Amino acid sequence: MASEAPAKRQKSAKDVPYSLVYWPGIPGRGEHVRLALEEAGAEYSDTAFTDGGIDEVMAFVQGKAPDDGINPPPCAPPILKHGDLVISQTPNILQYLGTRLGLLPGADEDPDALYRVNALALTALDGLSNEPHDCHHPIATGLYYEDQKVESKRKSEDYVKNRLPKFMSYFERVLGSKASGDGPWLYGGRLTYADLVLFQCVDGVKFMFPKAMGKLEKDGKHEKVFALHKAVAERPKIKAYLESPRRQKYSSGIYRYYEELDVEP
Amino acid sequence: MASEAPAKRQKSAKDVPYSLVYWPGIPGRGEHVRLALEEAGAEYSDTAFTDGGIDEVMAFVQGKAPDDGINPPPCAPPILKHGDLVISQTPNILQYLGTRLGLLPGADEDPDALYRVNALALTALDGLSNEPHDCHHPIATGLYYEDQKVESKRKSEDYVKNRLPKFMSYFERVLGSKASGDGPWLYGGRLTYADLVLFQCVDGVKFMFPKAMGKLEKDGKHEKVFALHKAVAERPKIKAYLESPRRQKYSSGIYRYYEELDVEP
Repeated sequence: MASEAPAKRQKSAKDVPYSLVYWPGIPGRGEHVRLALEEAGAEYSDTAFTDGGIDEVMAFVQGKAPDDGINPPPCAPPILKHGDLVISQTPNILQYLGTRLGLLPGADEDPDALYRVNALALTALDGLSNEPHDCHHPIATGLYYEDQKVESKRKSEDYVKNRLPKFMSYFERVLGSKASGDGPWLYGGRLTYADLVLFQCVDGVKFMFPKAMGKLEKDGKHEKVFALHKAVAERPKIKAYLESPRRQKYSSGIYRYYEELDVEP
Repeated sequence: MASEAPAKRQKSAKDVPYSLVYWPGIPGRGEHVRLALEEAGAEYSDTAFTDGGIDEVMAFVQGKAPDDGINPPPCAPPILKHGDLVISQTPNILQYLGTRLGLLPGADEDPDALYRVNALALTALDGLSNEPHDCHHPIATGLYYEDQKVESKRKSEDYVKNRLPKFMSYFERVLGSKASGDGPWLYGGRLTYADLVLFQCVDGVKFMFPKAMGKLEKDGKHEKVFALHKAVAERPKIKAYLESPRRQKYSSGIYRYYEELDVEP
């Protein structure tokens, strides 16, 4: 056995960069993972910007990645690799990162915080990411938008009228609850990964449904949600990231702009 | 201060029964929570069987539950109350229960197991619970099925042809991976809450799409998934539960039988 001094300087198995496996060309669900890594100033690689990155995504998607013996095969990106760990599912990756990157209260301080924050992240993803996605793909993810335009219009009208205000009002209520604490954040008076998720959701929905979100912004009933969006965008590391080429433009991912779906609220 | 002896006999804040807040009349998403509690033999109450239970559900849904000062208000049931903790979101509740009820490997033994198991649960819920729900409500959850029958048929056809086989094949692959270990379970050669989730999802989809699931069962390519369904159903506590009046019939919840949606695969 070597002496203890070098061992202390050795990197632990998890003291290695994070690897994000996600589709190139769209922010998509991978963007939630990027925002957590960027806010924390973590070192990471990203298949969206790596030569041959798409091949790695495809190997996972097609079930051709070799069985590594310790991780169940992931079903779909985003996938996070960290040391020997390979995990999928956006809220799951965020929970893993949140614990490690200081985007959650510590377990000593508030052991149930992770469940409270996880519920907020899951709810934002349900109502402000999955549902908007389904507004342009209500029938089948495997069909083009053009093959389900009529149904998309119908779903978008319902979303803008009923679902979007419901979720925006819900988060306004969370931000006004005692558990949110002081300041612009959802839980405990401090930034957690749920704030980053809500930022990205609001940002994407503003892009996809500018008329409806413009009205919600003007009506003054969701001021705390819009203030959170602004507060996240102004954080120094997030601001630098949003201005960098790493921040991809919305295109044909979750949040899409189709004039005919941008219905009057 | 009292002596230490009585304090040791006092119940800790969390050594109290669990309370499930969920709609009466349908198994729904609450069923995943029930299965975890039943398998563990945990003491719990359930608003589905409590006088005035519906009022408690409605208070939460309408945002009229008082601000308790420590929990963000939940958005929708299922909601779990445990001591002072109030949390929502099915996979989140399961993670909390999994840790406490022995439905996950211990953190000392396998500290990353919770992320691997959580990913499996989230994927089953996405593809085998949320998507089947959207097969009868593709346009708007606030409309009746009868108002979106044409779109439901179209979505169900795609689901049965493309999505259902995709997710069934995915879980067959997980069950054949080295990380699943020996025996019928998804991860680590032992029962976790992800197995209970997959059981309930397969059970519900069999009810909703008997033709498609009958074909998948016959084709012999998904034997491990069907064997897991059987293995969960035969566990003594689950068996007793399934035979009890606490196990509600599928009706107008997530999994519904409409003859016209039970399309030929």
